[in-house]
Amino acid sequence: MNTIGNILRLTTFGESHGACIGAVLDGYPAGIEIDMDFVQAEVDRRRAAHNPFSTPRDEDDRVELLSGMFEGKSTGAPLAFIVRNNDTHPQDYEGLKDMFRPGHADYTYQEKYGIRDYRGGGRASARETVVRVAAGAFAKLVLCQHGIEIKASIEDEERLNFRMEQAWYEGDTCGGVISCIIKGCPAGLGEPLYGKLHAALGAAMLSINAVKGFEYGEGFAAATMSGSQHNAARQGGILGGISNGEDINFRVAFKPIPTLGKDVEGRHDVCAVPRAVPIVEAMAALVVLDYLLLKR
Amino acid sequence: MNTIGNILRLTTFGESHGACIGAVLDGYPAGIEIDMDFVQAEVDRRRAAHNPFSTPRDEDDRVELLSGMFEGKSTGAPLAFIVRNNDTHPQDYEGLKDMFRPGHADYTYQEKYGIRDYRGGGRASARETVVRVAAGAFAKLVLCQHGIEIKASIEDEERLNFRMEQAWYEGDTCGGVISCIIKGCPAGLGEPLYGKLHAALGAAMLSINAVKGFEYGEGFAAATMSGSQHNAARQGGILGGISNGEDINFRVAFKPIPTLGKDVEGRHDVCAVPRAVPIVEAMAALVVLDYLLLKR
Amino acid sequence: MNTIGNILRLTTFGESHGACIGAVLDGYPAGIEIDMDFVQAEVDRRRAAHNPFSTPRDEDDRVELLSGMFEGKSTGAPLAFIVRNNDTHPQDYEGLKDMFRPGHADYTYQEKYGIRDYRGGGRASARETVVRVAAGAFAKLVLCQHGIEIKASIEDEERLNFRMEQAWYEGDTCGGVISCIIKGCPAGLGEPLYGKLHAALGAAMLSINAVKGFEYGEGFAAATMSGSQHNAARQGGILGGISNGEDINFRVAFKPIPTLGKDVEGRHDVCAVPRAVPIVEAMAALVVLDYLLLKR
Amino acid sequence: MNTIGNILRLTTFGESHGACIGAVLDGYPAGIEIDMDFVQAEVDRRRAAHNPFSTPRDEDDRVELLSGMFEGKSTGAPLAFIVRNNDTHPQDYEGLKDMFRPGHADYTYQEKYGIRDYRGGGRASARETVVRVAAGAFAKLVLCQHGIEIKASIEDEERLNFRMEQAWYEGDTCGGVISCIIKGCPAGLGEPLYGKLHAALGAAMLSINAVKGFEYGEGFAAATMSGSQHNAARQGGILGGISNGEDINFRVAFKPIPTLGKDVEGRHDVCAVPRAVPIVEAMAALVVLDYLLLKR
Repeated sequence: MNTIGNILRLTTFGESHGACIGAVLDGYPAGIEIDMDFVQAEVDRRRAAHNPFSTPRDEDDRVELLSGMFEGKSTGAPLAFIVRNNDTHPQDYEGLKDMFRPGHADYTYQEKYGIRDYRGGGRASARETVVRVAAGAFAKLVLCQHGIEIKASIEDEERLNFRMEQAWYEGDTCGGVISCIIKGCPAGLGEPLYGKLHAALGAAMLSINAVKGFEYGEGFAAATMSGSQHNAARQGGILGGISNGEDINFRVAFKPIPTLGKDVEGRHDVCAVPRAVPIVEAMAALVVLDYLLLKR
Repeated sequence: MNTIGNILRLTTFGESHGACIGAVLDGYPAGIEIDMDFVQAEVDRRRAAHNPFSTPRDEDDRVELLSGMFEGKSTGAPLAFIVRNNDTHPQDYEGLKDMFRPGHADYTYQEKYGIRDYRGGGRASARETVVRVAAGAFAKLVLCQHGIEIKASIEDEERLNFRMEQAWYEGDTCGGVISCIIKGCPAGLGEPLYGKLHAALGAAMLSINAVKGFEYGEGFAAATMSGSQHNAARQGGILGGISNGEDINFRVAFKPIPTLGKDVEGRHDVCAVPRAVPIVEAMAALVVLDYLLLKR
Repeated sequence: MNTIGNILRLTTFGESHGACIGAVLDGYPAGIEIDMDFVQAEVDRRRAAHNPFSTPRDEDDRVELLSGMFEGKSTGAPLAFIVRNNDTHPQDYEGLKDMFRPGHADYTYQEKYGIRDYRGGGRASARETVVRVAAGAFAKLVLCQHGIEIKASIEDEERLNFRMEQAWYEGDTCGGVISCIIKGCPAGLGEPLYGKLHAALGAAMLSINAVKGFEYGEGFAAATMSGSQHNAARQGGILGGISNGEDINFRVAFKPIPTLGKDVEGRHDVCAVPRAVPIVEAMAALVVLDYLLLKR
Repeated sequence: MNTIGNILRLTTFGESHGACIGAVLDGYPAGIEIDMDFVQAEVDRRRAAHNPFSTPRDEDDRVELLSGMFEGKSTGAPLAFIVRNNDTHPQDYEGLKDMFRPGHADYTYQEKYGIRDYRGGGRASARETVVRVAAGAFAKLVLCQHGIEIKASIEDEERLNFRMEQAWYEGDTCGGVISCIIKGCPAGLGEPLYGKLHAALGAAMLSINAVKGFEYGEGFAAATMSGSQHNAARQGGILGGISNGEDINFRVAFKPIPTLGKDVEGRHDVCAVPRAVPIVEAMAALVVLDYLLLKR
């Protein structure tokens, strides 16, 4: 199940230390001008989101479009694209061969498949998200034509910076929350009963590595409110699973990275949250465009 | 999109004030002894979950199985079943014809379809959950053969009772949180990358009326932890989207019912949470059995 | 897999000698006036198609609509409907309990499921087609608004009548061919590459009991033609899997009924072809409407 | 809809004159030894199938595996692979820019998408089948472990050779029939009612360019038989949509290539049938493995 979406379907492939990470985006509308500079810029946002407290892969993450475009426009055929892995040091991961890292998917993949590409997490690595961001950028090219804008941001960013600095000195890691707002979404997106718009958004967010929670509108806080309080609060832009034309807002919780600096040698991050911002936007863009196409 | 699931697919139909609520459960394994008393008992749990501060529909909610069973056992053919609506008072809802109740799906359904069965919420009514509970009961019949047990409960139940009593006197309503634990789930359930077990659980929970949030393991609390803290905490039984054999736990947030007693005449509830307990269990059971069948 | 379709999804349930045959039609457009007389008339066509050389079930096959309609119009919610089985004589089939009828699905169902509803073929019975015809009638209500007309007919009908008469006297059975033409289908229906319109039509026809072959345009005859001959012949209204606006024509081959009159007591037919005419139309109508909705 | 399959899902991408043709094969079992020499050999069969009466593309069609393999074995992650297009002469097709070739998908693609990659048929080109053959080869690696063998062949091959020779001299083209036999298929593959094994095989065959008909068992000939004749004939290995353990046989009709030698300059073929043989096998292999995985 490396595919997500109904009308617009993203299928991804590739491992952290294989030849490349890639994706096929099927169902993309025809006649859209493909601004590859924008797509590359979005992917660069993910890279640049690295913070001083991390040792990023030394790669330029260049998106190569393999199909689906003709004379600068989409043709309705699948968009396929890859990002090559250049900076792979498989030998760094030789030690992981016989080890299941706690908090990682090592054990569960081994249990499920009886075999495992242990180099840098293999298929389970967050590196896969590079093509999610590219796919989301293609989706945004359509959404902006409909006046739909998606903006994610780190919640309480200053405090997270402080926590990251602290974690860095302690050889530790930290988690955080990303909130997202969707503006300009028309009323009527969403499918009753098992294709509710917020259920699709939730599933997309929960498909991102390290995500432990999703809420929209007042979320968990709604559970503590009275009806009269909640009726006066923000509903999150979705009622009965269908957008009502107001801004849609949701929040996503990320756990801390399980591999701690004090425990390992080599490449590792202090916090996944900064670079997850464009990933959250990308997944939201894919869901909204999918539902827009479903509605037409 | 009135269907949920991959191998085990539940499709539901029916409106609050139509002839019946019904469902088709396709992909159900053959050769399972169908204990209709158990199925009925589960549906009765949903009814009985009504609290003193509510005015329930006066219906017996009897499950009629229409297909898929032969000589007491499932045949592999679809299980279809209905629960008739007897206690419908469409005239009570005549006033809703030209009114969009705030916090309800009235406006969004009208916007999406250009037409709306306004009687008691029509298709968007929580009454649809009666067949979810029945479907979940069929799923449990299989799960218990595999030693898998699903148990949901109201979080901080005493306090919720107090809040409900208070809301009742004030003509108000209240929300709450249900937590759920899945015991005995084997390692290896879940599909990378877009079919993660917790993403499927999340989408299923977010398909329940009034749900505003979902989290598993430490959930949103994980976002405030350091890696060393979180590594020592509960992971929620799922890593990389695949079960690891430990107990799976998750939490679901319900908003308060938007229709307040002080504002309306006739049938209404103070809190949806008590009767949502068997619904949460049912949806979890359907997801777990689906993934068990997917894994085989 | 008791479901067919992409946007318009038909799910059927029920056994030949169970309580009823039923179906859920999801994705049906909202706001369509539901002419139940027309739906019933289509189902009656299937019944009436019985020929003098058969002993039909003595049932009125009345369609009961359970959901999805409000004040005479479709609401966008699933249409669920059942046709009750009244004329069941399970005792007639007691003898089949330990017998696998040649040419029937008895053995394969037993092999697949380890259990089998042997009464009248159970789920594999052609009786299931009664709800296909009803579903197709609902689809036709939409198609006729778009000026699309579907007309199936027995090929070489006079000769088939003669063959049926002969078979009747010999206690034998016979097969036949149904051809179908779709008029008024707009250009642009069909999805490359694995959702070609003729592939969907073919799969739908091959899902009908007793069908052994499907061809469109010149079909198998095209294989014997030269390019210059074929270019001048009918293309079948589909190129590259997409309709070109011309009439679409296809043919469906039915095998003879395997149970011969000379071998059995009780209810049996000489030929499935006459009553398959509305079934072919119904399945074609479902496919065309599905692709029309997919295209919008 | 560039995807086919349920558990095993093939998604293809790429255009005739783009950078490459590629595919993602998801759901492929883990732990299979990937014999790339065999995969390449299958792809070479397709190339070699060119007959003396054609002017093939001068390409080596080398399959590059991008993902899903680790230490020579499949990991359960998607297999992605590409075949580069080297011998593209886009200028040869400049003349097609404003022309709809009869019998081709030019007009329908333009109608559907409002834009069209006219170079060599773009996405609609038969060149896409190169990755189908590679995907089928991966499937065969699993099937042979289960003792399942798939063998397609040109029907009446000598006569087709004569027809091709004649067509060549006349600047014409010709069609033909491919028959296929599946040996060693276990009983129980196939899903009632809309996932019948022969319906899936039919849909897969009808997804191949130029195919106009599909039949299994006695096919269209069955329509002219009496029941007593047909009961004694071959059933095609499938009853009620489910394999019965006997050999499965089916036939596929190909129309003549619409572009005639006498009408055009440059690269063109006399007959698509010879190179379609491995394509038919590949599509059958994908369907059978999909259903084998569905059955487990």
